Amino acid sequence: MAGKLLYAQSGGVTAVINTTAAAVLSAARARGVRAYAAHNGILGVLREDLIDTGRESAAALRALAHTPGGAFGSCRYKLKTPETDPAAYARLLQVLAAHDIRYFLYNGGNDSADTALKISAYARAGGRDLVCVGVPKTVDNDLAVTDCSPGFGSVAKYTALAVREASLDVASMAESSTKVFVIEVMGRHAGWIAAAAGLAAQQPDDAPHLILFPERPFDEAGFLARVEATVARVGWCTVVASEGVRNAEGAFLAEAGTRDAFGHAQLGGVAPLLAALVRQKLGLKVHWALPDYLQRSARHIASRTDAEQAAAVGRAAVEYALAGRSGTMPVIARTGDAPYRWKIVPAALAKVANHEKKLPRAFIRRDGYGITAAARAYLAPLTRGEAYPPYGPDGLPRYVRLKNAPVPRRLEPWYEHRDA
Amino acid sequence: MAGKLLYAQSGGVTAVINTTAAAVLSAARARGVRAYAAHNGILGVLREDLIDTGRESAAALRALAHTPGGAFGSCRYKLKTPETDPAAYARLLQVLAAHDIRYFLYNGGNDSADTALKISAYARAGGRDLVCVGVPKTVDNDLAVTDCSPGFGSVAKYTALAVREASLDVASMAESSTKVFVIEVMGRHAGWIAAAAGLAAQQPDDAPHLILFPERPFDEAGFLARVEATVARVGWCTVVASEGVRNAEGAFLAEAGTRDAFGHAQLGGVAPLLAALVRQKLGLKVHWALPDYLQRSARHIASRTDAEQAAAVGRAAVEYALAGRSGTMPVIARTGDAPYRWKIVPAALAKVANHEKKLPRAFIRRDGYGITAAARAYLAPLTRGEAYPPYGPDGLPRYVRLKNAPVPRRLEPWYEHRDA
Repeated sequence: MAGKLLYAQSGGVTAVINTTAAAVLSAARARGVRAYAAHNGILGVLREDLIDTGRESAAALRALAHTPGGAFGSCRYKLKTPETDPAAYARLLQVLAAHDIRYFLYNGGNDSADTALKISAYARAGGRDLVCVGVPKTVDNDLAVTDCSPGFGSVAKYTALAVREASLDVASMAESSTKVFVIEVMGRHAGWIAAAAGLAAQQPDDAPHLILFPERPFDEAGFLARVEATVARVGWCTVVASEGVRNAEGAFLAEAGTRDAFGHAQLGGVAPLLAALVRQKLGLKVHWALPDYLQRSARHIASRTDAEQAAAVGRAAVEYALAGRSGTMPVIARTGDAPYRWKIVPAALAKVANHEKKLPRAFIRRDGYGITAAARAYLAPLTRGEAYPPYGPDGLPRYVRLKNAPVPRRLEPWYEHRDA
Repeated sequence: MAGKLLYAQSGGVTAVINTTAAAVLSAARARGVRAYAAHNGILGVLREDLIDTGRESAAALRALAHTPGGAFGSCRYKLKTPETDPAAYARLLQVLAAHDIRYFLYNGGNDSADTALKISAYARAGGRDLVCVGVPKTVDNDLAVTDCSPGFGSVAKYTALAVREASLDVASMAESSTKVFVIEVMGRHAGWIAAAAGLAAQQPDDAPHLILFPERPFDEAGFLARVEATVARVGWCTVVASEGVRNAEGAFLAEAGTRDAFGHAQLGGVAPLLAALVRQKLGLKVHWALPDYLQRSARHIASRTDAEQAAAVGRAAVEYALAGRSGTMPVIARTGDAPYRWKIVPAALAKVANHEKKLPRAFIRRDGYGITAAARAYLAPLTRGEAYPPYGPDGLPRYVRLKNAPVPRRLEPWYEHRDA
């Protein structure tokens, strides 16, 4: 079998993107295909900054499967179109050819599917024998076609768990201390992660009492009235706020008001803003949390379902590549709800690229502050099962540090024309 | 055996305070002693708001051992001295007598040890047959006499784990995205939790690169220089900041500058303040996290050592109580470092009450931004081992909800004279 496989990671990483990486590399190895990885995603291809994964032991690949972050480095870098930046596409193909890369697997979200599709089309137009396969990944769960995105189930589990645990804390202190707790979760454009927090509730009046979705404009008076009523009824109140919550004018709440010590608008702070609002307008003691990267790197509490799906798309991507199915992506199809069943099926990258899967209206409760039974039925299987990493004598997970041995360069350096 | 046992929780809760509660109640049950719990700590005693734990099944008590929060409610309420508020003490003894309470177990920190001691002395002076035993608990690890405080090992594990995981995320994105990550941890007066974050590092240049302790005044220029140097050398930088970091004038950094949208000083925000500083002064992309209650309620990743010690002090407290050892507290004595060994020994409440165990100077690296080998030797055993709760089909831990059946009142209501 001629030609090597190149695997690259793109965009924000997840708790299980390395689970996919390990599956890709193990599957390639099992099929006798040499595999390289690009250092820092597509940037590594442009820079001819490649990693020889053949130098990693089988044990290292097994450990990679339970290690968070992106082991080869990822990047936020959007390729322009071939028409706008033909030099970049020419360079990509030059690097791939110089290293006899026949299969290019790009592990990312919407943008990355678009990139893989463009490279695939560009190579085909040039008569190159290159197979481009997309591999799905995103904590945001906004990838089209697939029923869910690898990475989402784990952040969903983390979020629901954090809400349940912290709320038990708040409940026990509320009589003489904190009465309102606000937790800010990721999801700038869609409320998938905020919705997942709703799984924490089992009975009416369980936390979270209020979820603020980016899909619903923030109504200050309505919000405060509900917080006050919840505290009066339950004794305390947990609020889950998506970082993407907007005001009625469509501006991100996090950017509309708070100034830091230097007078600059403070980013990433819906939770402190809401906390200040509750404190000032209702006079209630409030605490807030903002887990930020903790939520998407929490491999220690990854969903087993998510980890299994992350591995399955990796294995399938190798199969699709070796079968010459360029321009495709293995996606997850739900074949049953009770019991939950799923399988991997191929999707055309063109159907995934640049689309965005919105949180269905039917998943948001009519009052706008919670989730519906339909949302629970969709979400619950995705957080199911644990997939614990092994721990060392220091009480911390044994995460692997790969060798990441560089592949000797064969080309001249690439001079980037990056926009500032 | 005549007389009942009353158990109460006080102050901020921990991931394992209910492990102690379960051990107390199971031990009392095994010895044939009826056990009540006070609802919301000492407030529940004053208000005659008591819970009959005999209504809980053995299965519920087993589940209580792995449930975070404080199952009977805790409180932040500091009793005055008997001289200042004799009515409160008279009321406490009146309630205890009305319900035939012979053993009072108060589970808390420094203040609670003081309260238990005062009640013990007051009862003895009045010739009452009441045995008061303190039970140690605090995430802050600042209790005197004991080698460590139940609750600390779990928050230490959570913190080191969060730093390790989030830093893998940052490392993989740093080339084209976030270069500095700041995480704020609890510990207003002592840097024990901040120090525990240091366990995440295994090699030089591992995260955390900088730890800001409340014990060291914040030096803006020195801090920024180190962040810049770390990014230049490593490519990125993780900063752990204690919420208690102060400026050279001794003011909390979190209260010295940031204003919210309403122009009021914003509390609990060292991390956003440092992030703004790095962004403005160094021009680096920065993210920050503030786990707040998540860190002290994370029962899902509790330290097994911590859970075992939390159970052991609970069992010992019952033994001490039944043996009539009023004015004592079971504490943890370290009897070996390698291998780590510990045992429970009695301590006089007078030696614990109102003292504060400081982070030793020898635990902070000479440059003030990291921990020493001595700190690691002390800390590492405390985070060792996992103690996972069971999970349900929703992928979330099965935490118990107790019946908390109220004990019928026998006295007139208590009219509180609370200060505003």
